[in-house]
Amino acid sequence: MTIKNYHLTLRDVASHDAEYLETVFSLANGHFGVRANDPITGNPITGTLINGFYETSPITYGEAGIGYAQHHQTILNLPDLRHLTILTEHGHRFTKSRRTTANLDLTSGLLTEKYSLETMQGESIYLGVQSVIGQGQRNFWAVSYTITPGNYHGLLVVSKSIAVPAEAEELKSVDPRKSRIAGLPECESDFITQDLQRYHVKTRRTQESVTMYLGSLTPNCSLLRQSVDLGDGRPHVLEYEVYVGDVGEQNTIDPAATFLVNSWVALQKDSRDFWDDVWERSEVTVSGNDELNLAIHYNVFQLNQAAGRDGRTNIAAKGLSGSGYEGHYFWDTEMYMLPYFIYTNQPMARQLLFYRYQTLPQARMRARALGIDNGALFAWRTINGEEASPYFPAGTAQYHIDADIAYAVGRYFEITRDLDFIIQCGFEMVLETARFWENFGSWNQVDTASRFEFHTVTGPDEYTALVNNNYYTNRLAKHNFNLVVSLAHEILADDPDGLEPFGLTEADLDVFSNLADHVYLPYSRELRINEQDDSFLSKPRWPLSKSTPENFPLLLHYHPLTIYRYQVSKQADTLLADYLFPEDLSLDQLKREYRYYEGVTTHDSSLSRSIFSILAARMDDPEKAYRYFMDTARMDLVNLQKNTADGLHLANLGGSWLALVAGFSGFYVQDEVVHFNNHLPQEISELTYRMKIAESVLEISLTTTTTNVTVISGPIPTYGVSVNGEMISLEKVS
Amino acid sequence: MTIKNYHLTLRDVASHDAEYLETVFSLANGHFGVRANDPITGNPITGTLINGFYETSPITYGEAGIGYAQHHQTILNLPDLRHLTILTEHGHRFTKSRRTTANLDLTSGLLTEKYSLETMQGESIYLGVQSVIGQGQRNFWAVSYTITPGNYHGLLVVSKSIAVPAEAEELKSVDPRKSRIAGLPECESDFITQDLQRYHVKTRRTQESVTMYLGSLTPNCSLLRQSVDLGDGRPHVLEYEVYVGDVGEQNTIDPAATFLVNSWVALQKDSRDFWDDVWERSEVTVSGNDELNLAIHYNVFQLNQAAGRDGRTNIAAKGLSGSGYEGHYFWDTEMYMLPYFIYTNQPMARQLLFYRYQTLPQARMRARALGIDNGALFAWRTINGEEASPYFPAGTAQYHIDADIAYAVGRYFEITRDLDFIIQCGFEMVLETARFWENFGSWNQVDTASRFEFHTVTGPDEYTALVNNNYYTNRLAKHNFNLVVSLAHEILADDPDGLEPFGLTEADLDVFSNLADHVYLPYSRELRINEQDDSFLSKPRWPLSKSTPENFPLLLHYHPLTIYRYQVSKQADTLLADYLFPEDLSLDQLKREYRYYEGVTTHDSSLSRSIFSILAARMDDPEKAYRYFMDTARMDLVNLQKNTADGLHLANLGGSWLALVAGFSGFYVQDEVVHFNNHLPQEISELTYRMKIAESVLEISLTTTTTNVTVISGPIPTYGVSVNGEMISLEKVS
Repeated sequence: MTIKNYHLTLRDVASHDAEYLETVFSLANGHFGVRANDPITGNPITGTLINGFYETSPITYGEAGIGYAQHHQTILNLPDLRHLTILTEHGHRFTKSRRTTANLDLTSGLLTEKYSLETMQGESIYLGVQSVIGQGQRNFWAVSYTITPGNYHGLLVVSKSIAVPAEAEELKSVDPRKSRIAGLPECESDFITQDLQRYHVKTRRTQESVTMYLGSLTPNCSLLRQSVDLGDGRPHVLEYEVYVGDVGEQNTIDPAATFLVNSWVALQKDSRDFWDDVWERSEVTVSGNDELNLAIHYNVFQLNQAAGRDGRTNIAAKGLSGSGYEGHYFWDTEMYMLPYFIYTNQPMARQLLFYRYQTLPQARMRARALGIDNGALFAWRTINGEEASPYFPAGTAQYHIDADIAYAVGRYFEITRDLDFIIQCGFEMVLETARFWENFGSWNQVDTASRFEFHTVTGPDEYTALVNNNYYTNRLAKHNFNLVVSLAHEILADDPDGLEPFGLTEADLDVFSNLADHVYLPYSRELRINEQDDSFLSKPRWPLSKSTPENFPLLLHYHPLTIYRYQVSKQADTLLADYLFPEDLSLDQLKREYRYYEGVTTHDSSLSRSIFSILAARMDDPEKAYRYFMDTARMDLVNLQKNTADGLHLANLGGSWLALVAGFSGFYVQDEVVHFNNHLPQEISELTYRMKIAESVLEISLTTTTTNVTVISGPIPTYGVSVNGEMISLEKVS
Repeated sequence: MTIKNYHLTLRDVASHDAEYLETVFSLANGHFGVRANDPITGNPITGTLINGFYETSPITYGEAGIGYAQHHQTILNLPDLRHLTILTEHGHRFTKSRRTTANLDLTSGLLTEKYSLETMQGESIYLGVQSVIGQGQRNFWAVSYTITPGNYHGLLVVSKSIAVPAEAEELKSVDPRKSRIAGLPECESDFITQDLQRYHVKTRRTQESVTMYLGSLTPNCSLLRQSVDLGDGRPHVLEYEVYVGDVGEQNTIDPAATFLVNSWVALQKDSRDFWDDVWERSEVTVSGNDELNLAIHYNVFQLNQAAGRDGRTNIAAKGLSGSGYEGHYFWDTEMYMLPYFIYTNQPMARQLLFYRYQTLPQARMRARALGIDNGALFAWRTINGEEASPYFPAGTAQYHIDADIAYAVGRYFEITRDLDFIIQCGFEMVLETARFWENFGSWNQVDTASRFEFHTVTGPDEYTALVNNNYYTNRLAKHNFNLVVSLAHEILADDPDGLEPFGLTEADLDVFSNLADHVYLPYSRELRINEQDDSFLSKPRWPLSKSTPENFPLLLHYHPLTIYRYQVSKQADTLLADYLFPEDLSLDQLKREYRYYEGVTTHDSSLSRSIFSILAARMDDPEKAYRYFMDTARMDLVNLQKNTADGLHLANLGGSWLALVAGFSGFYVQDEVVHFNNHLPQEISELTYRMKIAESVLEISLTTTTTNVTVISGPIPTYGVSVNGEMISLEKVS
């Protein structure tokens, strides 16, 4: 397989609204993101987002209660790096701008756009914009503007600046998926030289600061007033670079010297090297449908752009492409995005898990606030580790995040055998979450059965809140108990005293094992399916026949009380557990459950369709799998949820990768065996993708009739590989 | 029985805090209330409360949702009528004040207090204050100040005014029972003459206004500067009167002329006449315990003070004695307070029900907002009829208020046979609430049973939220269905076309009957008791053994999620239904249920103990009934809930009357028979009380061995009377 040149090109950009384009063509590197604002007209609200750089504000409740989350955490909308001002020699400003083309090269990270500009007086010129963000050089972004004459051929005065956003009214929206606009940061700037400007951005409440530098890469080019003479008819190029410092970093860099090193060319190379490595490890090629093939490349590209790489940041629900959901990290990371990193980039996966680890102190305090004396409860939505969900029925009540994080730790260890990480970070997370479940749950004797139950919880399905024994939650908690025991044995095998630092005895492990054995999993004997919770099946079904597309998503059209009293799911819930634990149920039961829950699911969450696709594949219904996959794969590119303007749906990007890998190629890991099962739909003539596990890069290639797994680089892995149910020996491609 | 002089006297007033005294000695007349503020030192926040005079402010939610209540409605803290300023001739102001006695005459409504005053320079005088509020003359309040020398014998300069409250910070409290402080109203005043001042009070947002007049009843007495010479050693008396207009009323009165008519003496007579009538109709005398006897008189007195009489206002949770719960009306009116009025003052009961009727348009809109196409949902908490609960899980989700109101209409009609009211107002309320239940509920087939169920509701117990098939809610909804059918037949009996205006057919009635027959009532076969809801009994019990008094009330110490996941009740819930429908269950089952639910109830609500008292009486456990009753009867006088400062617990006042009447005397009405069953505890040697039903005043007199019912005035009633299970003939006392 050769890596091809993939470009996301939109030529009919005029048919898209500006905010959609800003999102789709955003560049990011895990540290910061630059939305593709029109450089001339800009966007009064957003421009630059720094991962983990947020403002707080007190949460005001209609009626406050004990233990409620106290502060909003809101990612900041920072000054726009792309802004440019151009005037004619007569002082006519080019204020009208029309984007004519945009092209994002997914193999190099280079974004190329063209604009047509006009003054109010009708003078016109053309502006080309190329930009690239540093990947190894995480603090840099560079832009090259190319100006060519239109009907105007005279002198231009160009000034380059970082545009500070205007004060904006706090957003009053009933759409909880949008971000509130926190008080804008203080912003001061000064000139070090005429071609080097410093910006100091500081949050008002938390007094966290970031320093940015804007420099010209063209010698002796004034930032404020640079003359350009279009009289020669040739294109004129102006290149600039921006340094976006780390949060709280002091002014220890010499920007002028640094800028020389990270020139426009150097930064392009840095970006290309990074993407070469990404595609080397995680190329995914779908033959037979170019649009789909582009979409999946785009999704993998954006996943890599979004993920915080420093262990102090994570992946926001919208990545760094928009401020939706306030830049918060959710369970989406562990359940939808982390698998991609675990199987293609283990150091990154480790960093993302380390982020959770460093929020353990906050998670312990949160458990106490919820009346749990022992263990930890991770925040449902957060940047700094403290709970920031202002609506607990679909926030804190989603306790399952604890088990989700533990699950991810288990999956990470399973494939990496990284015992260092387990001993230093992972085990503590799994232990503290298991302790949470131990203290949160309660025994209930029903006839002869002793059941360990969890009450008043909300599962993944946010259209059903505060229920008892949510199947997903209970199943994941059961796994959490099992996992703490199995990891403890791994530690003991390595060091017989290894559990002492955790204050854990064999007797404690027996307690956890016993709990795991008794966690109650609701099952309907009548329907012979797992029940979403104790009461889900007894509620009336949402009258879908009376619903029209305008009624969706339900959360934007109905009072929560109205939604909650119906049997209706926003997304895969019980089915999500089925996906995670294939060993739990027969194919027949899976088919029954799938049919049942599909009938009551609205897919109002972007986390839903990928799971329905994977399970359809597993059920050997590749056509259905393909239909769901098509909606996941191109969700943002076709603006399916109609809110891509607020940012990309990162979990769905991860989900679309899962649909290909866990769905069509039937990938899963169990008992140190990597399984592949070919469920490729007819619509895809060939699917080829790569994984990197430890030092080995595998390539998996499927047609509807063949399945090949080869080692591209690195040693032959030690784990077993099963294809379509038979163990195979891996061979290395020469 | 002769009406005795009952006085609430506190001589050790120094041991009580000021705000407690302000509440306990408040005067009111259903239209407005005057808290007993110290006339010299005042209270920066509260003073005067006008029933139904409120300010609005937008409700801010941490995360808003569709159909949420939009505006707070907050009763206004209005200027203090009692304020007085006294200076010595040298300009030393009496700023120190100590209340030495307070006496409220419950037979006349006259409040008499004594204060000891001092300047910073040590000069002292004594101030006596007598005040009375008009009862027939609902707009008037009068005060008489008597000044006598202490160590100071010189000239005094007295100025009388209505004290406008200072601007106060908005109250930030996590105690949802307190009131927020809405923006203070605009207040302007002018002098008409030197002894007549006009105050204009207007809300800032809603621009509703009230006019007040302050006049001197002493001729030629300057409000601003009245000289008083203490040199003669005699007491000096200054009398003033205040007119508190109706909300929105224009200046149509001639205050000077009106004041002459409503002089101090006339107003005292007006008040005494009113209380004579109240006691004539509803005297309650408990022999054997003077404190208790005083308490029950006090409770009846305050119930009468609090109730709005104009059909546009109702009874706030704190009456007009404080601004707790923002002056809102709750279900408390219908379920705890209305019975007193139904059985002692039917015109008042009708007015209180009429208030609900005139909010039907808002209730219809509210049902639509909750996705119910037909029927009406009354606001859980409101002044103007619109929902003002900012926390829907313990607000709007308490749908049972609909059935509570219908229940009250039924009880009113049962004893009054007031078909006019039913046709004009009552039936529409019962029909619209029945239609709500019809559309809100859903059929569920369980084995061979077709059950009509109600999902995601909160019952009376606010420590258990968003559950399915709350027994109380379902039982009351069932009654609502039955009631609409039985009232329809009453209308049809009167006029065969009587249902046409309501668009109702016999077939519709059959539908309601069928629904009533199939409403599901959860019952535990294992425990042989009614279940509070589908899941209550499967939750773990609250670890009461680990709880100390500081843990209560739970809502002020625990996150709602913590409370909700336990089997713990704030108050009587299933037992409240048992109290309402004695015919539903055997004494044995009642005993089982009582024992069970008593074990999981914290009584954190002031609505709880009275019901436990009534049922204990019904179970012939008069000692337990007496213990619960003692806590209800004296709840505010002993400050049991520790928040009497915020206002009286009106529902509990009604509950204490119910405990005597429905509990100790076993009163209930069924099938046109009035039942009395003697359950008098040993601690009470005699209980005598009166009821007024239509034009007949009954007197019921019980000792532990005798039960007598006689007609004091009016005709012999037409309904049957049963005493201890045997029908008796009533006789008239000559």
